[in-house]
Amino acid sequence: MLRELNPSIRTLMTPGPVEAEPRILRAMSIPIIGQFDPEFLAIMDETMELLRKTFQTKNHWAYPIDGTSRSGLEAVLNAIIEPGDNVLVPIFGRFGHLLAEIAYRSGANVTTMECEWGTAFEQEEIIAEIKRVNPKVVALVHGETSTGIMQPFEKIGKFCRENDVLFVVDAVATLGGTEFKTDEWFVDAVISGTQKCLGVPTGMAPITYNDRVEKIILERRKIEQGLDRTSENPRRIQTNYFDLSQIQEYWSPKRLNHHTEATSMLYALREGLRIIQEEGLQERFERHQYHEKALVAGLEAMGLTLFGDARYKMPVVTCINIPEGVNGDEVRFTMAKEFGVEIASTFGSLAGKIWRIGSMGFSCRKENILHVLAALEASVRRHGGKVHAGEALQAALDVYAEKEAALSNK
Amino acid sequence: MLRELNPSIRTLMTPGPVEAEPRILRAMSIPIIGQFDPEFLAIMDETMELLRKTFQTKNHWAYPIDGTSRSGLEAVLNAIIEPGDNVLVPIFGRFGHLLAEIAYRSGANVTTMECEWGTAFEQEEIIAEIKRVNPKVVALVHGETSTGIMQPFEKIGKFCRENDVLFVVDAVATLGGTEFKTDEWFVDAVISGTQKCLGVPTGMAPITYNDRVEKIILERRKIEQGLDRTSENPRRIQTNYFDLSQIQEYWSPKRLNHHTEATSMLYALREGLRIIQEEGLQERFERHQYHEKALVAGLEAMGLTLFGDARYKMPVVTCINIPEGVNGDEVRFTMAKEFGVEIASTFGSLAGKIWRIGSMGFSCRKENILHVLAALEASVRRHGGKVHAGEALQAALDVYAEKEAALSNK
Repeated sequence: MLRELNPSIRTLMTPGPVEAEPRILRAMSIPIIGQFDPEFLAIMDETMELLRKTFQTKNHWAYPIDGTSRSGLEAVLNAIIEPGDNVLVPIFGRFGHLLAEIAYRSGANVTTMECEWGTAFEQEEIIAEIKRVNPKVVALVHGETSTGIMQPFEKIGKFCRENDVLFVVDAVATLGGTEFKTDEWFVDAVISGTQKCLGVPTGMAPITYNDRVEKIILERRKIEQGLDRTSENPRRIQTNYFDLSQIQEYWSPKRLNHHTEATSMLYALREGLRIIQEEGLQERFERHQYHEKALVAGLEAMGLTLFGDARYKMPVVTCINIPEGVNGDEVRFTMAKEFGVEIASTFGSLAGKIWRIGSMGFSCRKENILHVLAALEASVRRHGGKVHAGEALQAALDVYAEKEAALSNK
Repeated sequence: MLRELNPSIRTLMTPGPVEAEPRILRAMSIPIIGQFDPEFLAIMDETMELLRKTFQTKNHWAYPIDGTSRSGLEAVLNAIIEPGDNVLVPIFGRFGHLLAEIAYRSGANVTTMECEWGTAFEQEEIIAEIKRVNPKVVALVHGETSTGIMQPFEKIGKFCRENDVLFVVDAVATLGGTEFKTDEWFVDAVISGTQKCLGVPTGMAPITYNDRVEKIILERRKIEQGLDRTSENPRRIQTNYFDLSQIQEYWSPKRLNHHTEATSMLYALREGLRIIQEEGLQERFERHQYHEKALVAGLEAMGLTLFGDARYKMPVVTCINIPEGVNGDEVRFTMAKEFGVEIASTFGSLAGKIWRIGSMGFSCRKENILHVLAALEASVRRHGGKVHAGEALQAALDVYAEKEAALSNK
């Protein structure tokens, strides 16, 4: 007979999944209540309101899709894109390709533009391409975890709004960890994920969209046969599971049954978002920044170099060039096996060339930063790499001491 | 500031979501580990093996889709159905319409056949229609929770196998609660859900399929652009999130990244399936049967009548005709408000005419059966209904006493 689960405790310093706060884990063990229980409906409404605050939006619609992050990407793109629509996807890493792939499978004519992995676009380049292609939709990744790069886009959003282009942003890796202003940056639809900077277990994809997007969704509405057999709409959304015209009715006062909301995951999401409000959005972004500062100071003191264009570095992902002569995977395996610390490799052309360290959500805290630096230094040395022994922790501790001094002077 | 979650404790006697065993809830609060952690990969493999046992299959492929039950329906039907394929869907309740809807959205030419809600088909009727339509796929609901009816299909499965028709069964409401023999009954693909007889929180859809289905999936394989830009396949599966050709590679020793597996939900599913093995499948089915016997004895002693053709009654859902002059919703609200007991109404033409009581998974236990009978009797009386006061609990207790006597004679 299989024994009960008892996995090892890990220090998770990858770009997701990250560690979940004990309060979030405890929320998941709350007993189940029914999906139409007034108390459950209140939890749904509270979660919507918490999501609006986290997305910094006045949009009415803000709710989770029951699936992992890419389920949100597929739900939003499938809702907006009709076969033959022109879609522009600027690509600067793996997850840009994913947006292009999903748009393509939605029946779009997809135009892509690419820049070198490890850098971002000048916003003017993208705007010029929008002028040339005249797409219905621009879909863009905000933080590209595969390369650790973050694309600024406030000018792009403004241009899209002024020119009646729909602007969709993948904020899976950034929401809750770094500034994201849905309304102020003119984003029509945003998709996020739970297991990164929100610090909630993986399995939900929070989304928000405005009335420009809702208009399309309503035009494409088709009631399912089990509820109304006469319903027909040639423009219907292809998918049933991700049919936002149905899902938004489930999240409306009508509560029209589409699926059974994932009870325990919703408990976790609500608790995670509540903790974010308790911490304060700006305070949370600053926390991510100063831990990043300590991490980077430590890595540089060790003698390692960072990968990618520093102007566009994601504050919550730090990519490191693997020193020559060192086998990156062996170092990672030693870190995991001996220290219980997980960092990440990456995809495609960068595989074997960089390590990625995430500092997201609850994983982004002092003891984890110090632990990952100690484990990395020891493991690189163990595999024949040359680093300045003992310097990393001192440099990181200096950053923390400086931070504490600044706080006590306040 | 919003307070931490603290919902009321409910007695859930609907056809899902049902109560989760404390051990399953505790499993959800286990800290997160990384998706490529060897310990997590072991949990994935163990879950596959537990699912094979639960589905009673030798199929290699048995894993959960990360979404609620209907995500599994969509994943399997989208994988098998190509535009223009003929699909036959026999319908005897709301969820048959859902299968037809999803097949239709997958691009199928859907033929439906219907029988009155509250009864099932003679297997020969369906076989005759298969001969007439000659479909590529027959998609059938096993237990139709909207009507409490279960469709026998062992002859249909055999006929499909002999005539090279693919046979897909929706076992969302039955797996783990009543006999389901995937291989012996010649089912090519089965879909289930977690929140019913498996007794796990909602949010995953376990599926299994054999090599006849896998062959189609492999023929439709397309690698996503982020991993291989040259990949092309005109027969590709439409959806990315539900692309089983990619998902099965993630669940294979290749572990090719598709999504980040829903960590805490997988913990819960593994624990739920482990508990099923511990109880024993046959013992579990018998448990559901004798609690059903006690429930039905109680309802009949009260003077209520059951809805639907008794020959085809689901053992895990009991439908009751709402007595004339009684407002069914008011009774349900009183049960919820005063007793904390939830039972269900239903959909479509039966709305307002029947109540549905689920007795599934952990919710299916003596104290819950007694509690629902007491609450129903009192609430019906409270709303002017005439029932035989005090008889229901005596009748149910008689069934339990008989059961205990039989056990002690063993």
